[in-house]
Amino acid sequence: MKKIDVLVSEVGPRDGLQSLKSVMPTEVKKAWIQAQFEAGTQEIEVGSFVSSKIFPQLADTPEIVAFSRGLKGLHVAVLVPNLKGLRNAVESGAHKISIPFSVSETHSFHNLRRSHQQMFDEIESCVDFLETLPRQERPDFEVGLSTAFGCALEGKVPAKKVIGIAEKVIELGVDEVCLSDTAGSGNPSQLKSLAEGIWQNCGREKLKSVHLHNTRGQGLANALMAVQIGISTIDSSMGGIGGCPFSPGASGNIVTEDLVFMLESMGLNTGIDIEELLVVRDMIKNALPQEKLYGFTPESGLPLGFCGASQ
Amino acid sequence: MKKIDVLVSEVGPRDGLQSLKSVMPTEVKKAWIQAQFEAGTQEIEVGSFVSSKIFPQLADTPEIVAFSRGLKGLHVAVLVPNLKGLRNAVESGAHKISIPFSVSETHSFHNLRRSHQQMFDEIESCVDFLETLPRQERPDFEVGLSTAFGCALEGKVPAKKVIGIAEKVIELGVDEVCLSDTAGSGNPSQLKSLAEGIWQNCGREKLKSVHLHNTRGQGLANALMAVQIGISTIDSSMGGIGGCPFSPGASGNIVTEDLVFMLESMGLNTGIDIEELLVVRDMIKNALPQEKLYGFTPESGLPLGFCGASQ
Repeated sequence: MKKIDVLVSEVGPRDGLQSLKSVMPTEVKKAWIQAQFEAGTQEIEVGSFVSSKIFPQLADTPEIVAFSRGLKGLHVAVLVPNLKGLRNAVESGAHKISIPFSVSETHSFHNLRRSHQQMFDEIESCVDFLETLPRQERPDFEVGLSTAFGCALEGKVPAKKVIGIAEKVIELGVDEVCLSDTAGSGNPSQLKSLAEGIWQNCGREKLKSVHLHNTRGQGLANALMAVQIGISTIDSSMGGIGGCPFSPGASGNIVTEDLVFMLESMGLNTGIDIEELLVVRDMIKNALPQEKLYGFTPESGLPLGFCGASQ
Repeated sequence: MKKIDVLVSEVGPRDGLQSLKSVMPTEVKKAWIQAQFEAGTQEIEVGSFVSSKIFPQLADTPEIVAFSRGLKGLHVAVLVPNLKGLRNAVESGAHKISIPFSVSETHSFHNLRRSHQQMFDEIESCVDFLETLPRQERPDFEVGLSTAFGCALEGKVPAKKVIGIAEKVIELGVDEVCLSDTAGSGNPSQLKSLAEGIWQNCGREKLKSVHLHNTRGQGLANALMAVQIGISTIDSSMGGIGGCPFSPGASGNIVTEDLVFMLESMGLNTGIDIEELLVVRDMIKNALPQEKLYGFTPESGLPLGFCGASQ
């Protein structure tokens, strides 16, 4: 893999599909993941080890992880809600495991049916389990700080609370935290001050990624600030599909196609061939004819004479 | 008027309406302009002194300017294509007059049917005319550098060419230039380097504003970069209506509602009450039932507990 400037981490097959009514057939998911990997995407969140009763869209996660591990060089990420999911994720061989922690306790009760204390206990059990594994078999373990920029149920979320929870989970032994704008209410200044607060209290290497939503159209502005201050991983989803089912009004992740266009235009190498990426979008569009896909670049096409950093 | 951090200059009544098939009745335009002024907007481009055969949407510009001048404190801006338009604009009493200059000569022939040399000559005549007026009666005279970020017809536009034209028109005596991303292909790094190039060659006070399009979803990211480097005026249009009729695929100005949300969220005072602005949008939506309005904030609503810088 060649050196990239910003890692665009695709979350469509997990965060995207989870929110849709349609269930994408396993073979179509595999074709999507493979095509996107071949277009240059180096990290994909391919599924979630959650109840297949609640999320039938993700019931095939073990098979999808096994397939994705066969794509040499792809960093295979998954989501888990608890220790049980983590054990299954480890067994599947995922390279990176994220667990969401809602900074808003109201959202925590809605999304994971757990209080903050219960979440801390669960995370501690996860770390304890991971420490029983030989070091070379341990996946990266990340806590996603959901509702870090505000909560659709609670409203404002104090920065101090976000930073305090980041400190606590880092103390418990997780590798990294990720700042998640679950409600899509964040702004660039807030992103900068939250990241700097976490860096000051936990160390620079403990926060490298952000997960942004485009609910109020602020996604790329927030992403720009993220790369300006040195965040190196940005989650996004093809066609902007996704959003949290327990966060009213919070439609859509930021759009991979538009994010890659911005970064590549700025001379930042994502490793992704945007023309191939637009072909992957067509594939997804055909597979999800009833779903609304977001994104401006696919509609307008690339500018005449466009040449991205990775080309 | 209280001190603001960023001037959001509304171009919907000119750039927006010009691109639509619908012709908005004069009384509805007046109601829009008044409502948006009352919501706190301090500069509005209310019309254009162009041929009313080509642009029947703007045939009422003299009446609209007269009405707008009655809104005490509103900076009334208009567009003109040539000396004839400028004379009419001066007669109407507009406070600010912009003339577009396409950096891409191909676009210049399409948009204004003039070569670069013809445009320089026209601008010189305009300056000569303005200099015959008593100083206190002279409006601000600005050149909009169209296609400064790239052209849908020519492709890449060299920065050197943009800066060279900026120097030339400043030498001819215009007050200011504005960087216009007519084709919506610009990126934040490009915006920064173009602005810095013009500042170095023409002086900081000669470039204070940008005119951005959202064709590839990059509008707010570009606007963020603009305010970060000290640009103090950003054009935008309610519902993102507009775009250049001679720039294929170039749909939509940046959306005023989402821009104001970004700036106010960041603690930057625009003077605009965003809740009132959303009421103005509803008024425009009702007046243009067949037109597509863009914007995310109006769809999702303001975040729970939101309080902007101007509130």
